[in-house]
Amino acid sequence: MKVNLYSSQCPSRGVLDLIGSKWAMLLLCVLRDGATRTGELRRRLQGVSQKMLTQTLRDLERSGIVERIDYGEVPPRVEYRLTRLGHSLSGLMKDIEEWVTRNYPRMHGAALAFDAGDARPE
Amino acid sequence: MKVNLYSSQCPSRGVLDLIGSKWAMLLLCVLRDGATRTGELRRRLQGVSQKMLTQTLRDLERSGIVERIDYGEVPPRVEYRLTRLGHSLSGLMKDIEEWVTRNYPRMHGAALAFDAGDARPE
Repeated sequence: MKVNLYSSQCPSRGVLDLIGSKWAMLLLCVLRDGATRTGELRRRLQGVSQKMLTQTLRDLERSGIVERIDYGEVPPRVEYRLTRLGHSLSGLMKDIEEWVTRNYPRMHGAALAFDAGDARPE
Repeated sequence: MKVNLYSSQCPSRGVLDLIGSKWAMLLLCVLRDGATRTGELRRRLQGVSQKMLTQTLRDLERSGIVERIDYGEVPPRVEYRLTRLGHSLSGLMKDIEEWVTRNYPRMHGAALAFDAGDARPE
């Protein structure tokens, strides 16, 4: 299989829509801490809707990035965790999370300058 | 400035919507090759519309990630290049591009198995 993200014909592009989504990026970072229940995920990703969380987890599960663990207990206990494939991706997402946390003030400053009609290169 | 991507109140989240977009990710990788004209960018990012390309470049410029260079020539010659800030981010995007290229076949296989009701962890 020849993968080419620059080709409009290559189905691999869909992966960017999935893993580039804000919620997927944050989920992958949170799941580095280990298997986590949905309620806890929802608490940590402030502002995510139940529907969006469920859909993102399902998409990530479908692509082999996360694994759904149903302990078969009553009351039900379900957790999500990274697969081995997901672990390798989550490391890259963590790099991006850290980059944004470190550089957001600079980006914010650039945006203010840009909006004031004073765009300058870094 | 305290940056917290997990808080629904923190404006840094908007950055994820910008840099996580498929076109921004691919643009950042392409611009690693050096200053590039819009027409060439459009050729390399197959399927991107002029409108989406222009908007993405503008958003990236506003945030200090890319720089617009107008050579003031007739006919007009305009190029885009990474700022120093953009260079550091583009390295991370390149990692993700390579990860997807390497792992897409595995993700595709997982999706086929999932759709067949045969989801298995990696």
